[in-house]
Amino acid sequence: MAPTYFSKRNLHFLLHEVFRAEELARYPYFSAHDRETINMALDSATFIADTLMYPYLKDVDRNQPELKNGQVTVHPKIREFLKAMGDAGLIGAGFSFDHGGQQLPEMIGSAITFILMAANNGMMYAGLTSGAAHLITSFGSTALIDSYVPNMLDGTWQGTMALTEPQAGSSLSDVTTSATPLPDGESTALADQPGSYKISGQKVFISAGDHDAADNIIHLMLARIDGAPKGTKGISLFVVPKLRPDGQGGFVDNDVQSTGVYHKLGQKGVPAMHLTMGSNNDTIGYLLGEPHQGLRYMFQMMNEARIGVGMTAAAIATAAYCSALQYARERPQSRRLNEKNRLDAPQTPIINHPDVRRMLLFQKAVTEGSLSLLLEAARLYDISEAAEGAEKENAFLLLDLLMPVAKSYPAEMGVQSVSQSLQTLGGYGFTEDFPVEQLYRDIRITPIYEGTTGIQAQDLLGRKITQKGGKGTQLLFAEMSKTIREASAYDELKPYTQQLGAELKRTQDVVESLMPHALNGDTERYLADATLFLELFGIVVVAWQWLKQSVVAKQAILTQNPQGDELAFYEGKLHTMKFYFHYEVPKTLGLAVRLKDTEVLTIVTEKELAL
Amino acid sequence: MAPTYFSKRNLHFLLHEVFRAEELARYPYFSAHDRETINMALDSATFIADTLMYPYLKDVDRNQPELKNGQVTVHPKIREFLKAMGDAGLIGAGFSFDHGGQQLPEMIGSAITFILMAANNGMMYAGLTSGAAHLITSFGSTALIDSYVPNMLDGTWQGTMALTEPQAGSSLSDVTTSATPLPDGESTALADQPGSYKISGQKVFISAGDHDAADNIIHLMLARIDGAPKGTKGISLFVVPKLRPDGQGGFVDNDVQSTGVYHKLGQKGVPAMHLTMGSNNDTIGYLLGEPHQGLRYMFQMMNEARIGVGMTAAAIATAAYCSALQYARERPQSRRLNEKNRLDAPQTPIINHPDVRRMLLFQKAVTEGSLSLLLEAARLYDISEAAEGAEKENAFLLLDLLMPVAKSYPAEMGVQSVSQSLQTLGGYGFTEDFPVEQLYRDIRITPIYEGTTGIQAQDLLGRKITQKGGKGTQLLFAEMSKTIREASAYDELKPYTQQLGAELKRTQDVVESLMPHALNGDTERYLADATLFLELFGIVVVAWQWLKQSVVAKQAILTQNPQGDELAFYEGKLHTMKFYFHYEVPKTLGLAVRLKDTEVLTIVTEKELAL
Repeated sequence: MAPTYFSKRNLHFLLHEVFRAEELARYPYFSAHDRETINMALDSATFIADTLMYPYLKDVDRNQPELKNGQVTVHPKIREFLKAMGDAGLIGAGFSFDHGGQQLPEMIGSAITFILMAANNGMMYAGLTSGAAHLITSFGSTALIDSYVPNMLDGTWQGTMALTEPQAGSSLSDVTTSATPLPDGESTALADQPGSYKISGQKVFISAGDHDAADNIIHLMLARIDGAPKGTKGISLFVVPKLRPDGQGGFVDNDVQSTGVYHKLGQKGVPAMHLTMGSNNDTIGYLLGEPHQGLRYMFQMMNEARIGVGMTAAAIATAAYCSALQYARERPQSRRLNEKNRLDAPQTPIINHPDVRRMLLFQKAVTEGSLSLLLEAARLYDISEAAEGAEKENAFLLLDLLMPVAKSYPAEMGVQSVSQSLQTLGGYGFTEDFPVEQLYRDIRITPIYEGTTGIQAQDLLGRKITQKGGKGTQLLFAEMSKTIREASAYDELKPYTQQLGAELKRTQDVVESLMPHALNGDTERYLADATLFLELFGIVVVAWQWLKQSVVAKQAILTQNPQGDELAFYEGKLHTMKFYFHYEVPKTLGLAVRLKDTEVLTIVTEKELAL
Repeated sequence: MAPTYFSKRNLHFLLHEVFRAEELARYPYFSAHDRETINMALDSATFIADTLMYPYLKDVDRNQPELKNGQVTVHPKIREFLKAMGDAGLIGAGFSFDHGGQQLPEMIGSAITFILMAANNGMMYAGLTSGAAHLITSFGSTALIDSYVPNMLDGTWQGTMALTEPQAGSSLSDVTTSATPLPDGESTALADQPGSYKISGQKVFISAGDHDAADNIIHLMLARIDGAPKGTKGISLFVVPKLRPDGQGGFVDNDVQSTGVYHKLGQKGVPAMHLTMGSNNDTIGYLLGEPHQGLRYMFQMMNEARIGVGMTAAAIATAAYCSALQYARERPQSRRLNEKNRLDAPQTPIINHPDVRRMLLFQKAVTEGSLSLLLEAARLYDISEAAEGAEKENAFLLLDLLMPVAKSYPAEMGVQSVSQSLQTLGGYGFTEDFPVEQLYRDIRITPIYEGTTGIQAQDLLGRKITQKGGKGTQLLFAEMSKTIREASAYDELKPYTQQLGAELKRTQDVVESLMPHALNGDTERYLADATLFLELFGIVVVAWQWLKQSVVAKQAILTQNPQGDELAFYEGKLHTMKFYFHYEVPKTLGLAVRLKDTEVLTIVTEKELAL
């Protein structure tokens, strides 16, 4: 096992030096916080990660949840973990004081997610509860909030996001779970909960959708009220508990049946449930907010959820990188290439082989670039929540534009990064003697859930790039130009400012070459290669993040006279930035050629293609 | 489960139409064969794959080998499979009639490997036996051949390749297993086996290194005779059986102890053993051929072994592609992008979405391109074995050059291809309900064993590109030019002939820009980015294979007037060739930029890098 699963130094560099987390205290909502309270929250998460999560990484993987007689059993440490998270106030870290939270910025909340998921992503329960509870506090009545949120934030009750159905995976407009209104007060159980509906239908892949480590499971569930319009405009959001209040202070079973648990490639610690509602015509759901607004509500929480998935990917890849780095430092194998004939010489640690160093730098570039981008997104989220006026609106537009990349880059490149971690260990990487093979399995879900990469790509090119007259894109380019200006002050960084400028131009050219298809209404053609555009855009955005980090590193070297490990840390940042620009950025060349290519090869014609 | 795990039509297209397998009968060694005998062998393999392998794909994965009390138990079907393979003459398919084989070309032998490994790569036992037996027939005495080969070819005894040691993975020059000469005839057991040695040491990751489905295990083991020179020139090859003859017609235990079985990410059906020789000072090995020639012997068999690994990768990726293709055809989800608002329309099969079609075409391009390249390599192997004079020598040089690519491209791109298969299935791809998650795990070893991708890259750039004054490279470029000339006869193919020509030029430019480092003796600098060169070279070589296939497809369309499925098959070939050139080939742009870049970022300097 690697002795660490993340770099505290790097996390503090990003939070405090690059993104200056404590400056968020200028907004009233965050005014209770400073660097000390922030670091206390991080230390608290690290303690839980160190003691209750990391030691059980393999154990949670090997003892996957089982469904027997309708009951799902999970690893016994999960309950302990949820309790500790609740007691430490970490499930409600971002919630308002009024709702029992800490009013911590999402930047810190997502840093906490990073630490926890790096330690053991198979224990991802708390984030789901937090997201579900946030939907209730954002859109629910006081009655709903009072009934559900306190038990969720203290880790006693589990929250879920119940969207996917067997026939509606990426296509939420095809959700068919039904909701039939009940007369208010029909049963005593519902007397104080107006807006009650009978729910009937099926949901699949519901993470933490049932288990024995929580006393109740609270599903935030999409369903269609009888007679609702077709498509996305007829979908409503309900709170559907596993156990519902009986109106007399107790609880009764709410007829949400666990009809299957998926056995999976990775994240085996978390049950992915197949749930059936209304088998006995006795599932009751409570409407959250207004009818037919369900998808809108969900979308309003989606940026937060997608930051969470991106963070999970970045965290898993970081843990794998830590393991690979340690192995490469300790494992002697062969001699350096210019000393091949010195047979008497001892073997050299493999970190000294250029090919291994290239693999490690790739992992560092991907993982630290991803984390930087995600903290940038979280910062924008915080400003979009806490600021006012134009500042709020601009932050929101920029966040909205970055979100598909901030979810997909860490996921897609994280899969590749962990693969390189595994390769660094050679044959040992393929064995269960090291954690990398597990992380290789775990991370593979991240390009799929919370919107597949293909869906993110359509969101980016089909909606975000052009929305509000392309204002988000203008804001992003302005931010990048600002970083380029700051970097231009240093000779060492100048070549990279020019390269980033050229990449911005290339990105614009690509968009311009595609735009006529959008203007002609040929969405299919416009979006045919959207995934490649997302890849190109991601490379450029992360190049910006690396340049941004290198400006801070350069300033620190010049002004703080760091020595020893500190100097090496900052120089490592500059070196990795260069690696990124020399090895990763050139990939845009081929992508741009394809994206501007007029040959259509993936759109269906009448003639069936023999695949 | 997908109904098929490979395309028989495509395999026959490559064997009979592109590479004209039966023409190998012009060489005396293969003269007994024609299309009928070839197809009989393929059908025989398919029958075994259909009945004894594919039905147990998951079962073999889920019941992995266990080591208890020094005994390794494997899935009970393995014994049945080995017996069937022996009875069908498939373990000895390529062996001479004299040795009890069928004298079938390696092109057919590797096609058989492809079929079997596509069905169930967790049952890879027979290929290991075949490789080990081939070493014995190639370099062993008549006594050794008679003692071991018949029982190996009939599937009763298992063969292994015992190279790797705990301290010597990629660095075989550091092998320390020792061999101490025994006086001939010291024990009655050895009276008829001169060249006997006491063996002592450890080997790790020995696939099929011990199990209960064979009556004996025959290790082809590298070791160092006492007093041998250091490095690669002092390594000898031994036959080390699990049970050795007692000289009286029986067998005694040879003190090869199973001290561990690795639990692995994939290929769980095959035990990867940790073996200890000489714990009781009673392991005897029989020298194969001359002392100190062990690595040379191994290297002479390495092309065959690497074709086997490449084929395994191509086969696994093919099985995953078949599964993804079937799913994409059957799974309705969402509406086509230009029909998003037709809410009443039924959902469309996902194969109709450009992004899914792109993923499928990528898989088809990679898997069929890999198979084509591997059959090309196998054909060259056959000519290098069966021809005479310059024809033999040229085939060998060309094979030697192609081998690093023919091993690595299917492995590296196969990993990506299976990942896209998984992505095609979305959330279902992550579950054990479909075989893709298993194939995703299984294929991940292929860039590691039989020489990691990094080792292959050093072999390609450091040795093969320049050996014999670059003759292999010249021969390859001549072959590619021949394909370009043939393709130039068709207007539809002309743009791609130009593109391939430009890629050849680009490849040459890259080599020329690197060559000064080699000439200056700075091997480390010369090879620092060798893996990227291997990637570039692989893209170009497979582009050649696709152009070659498209010439044959075009000719068939023009001369044979195919209809229906046959026409669609050939048009699918042309379409996929175009996809490959439009989507895959542009990746060389970025690779070439990096390879010609003078910034050094991965070579160790005195200053320790903070990774």
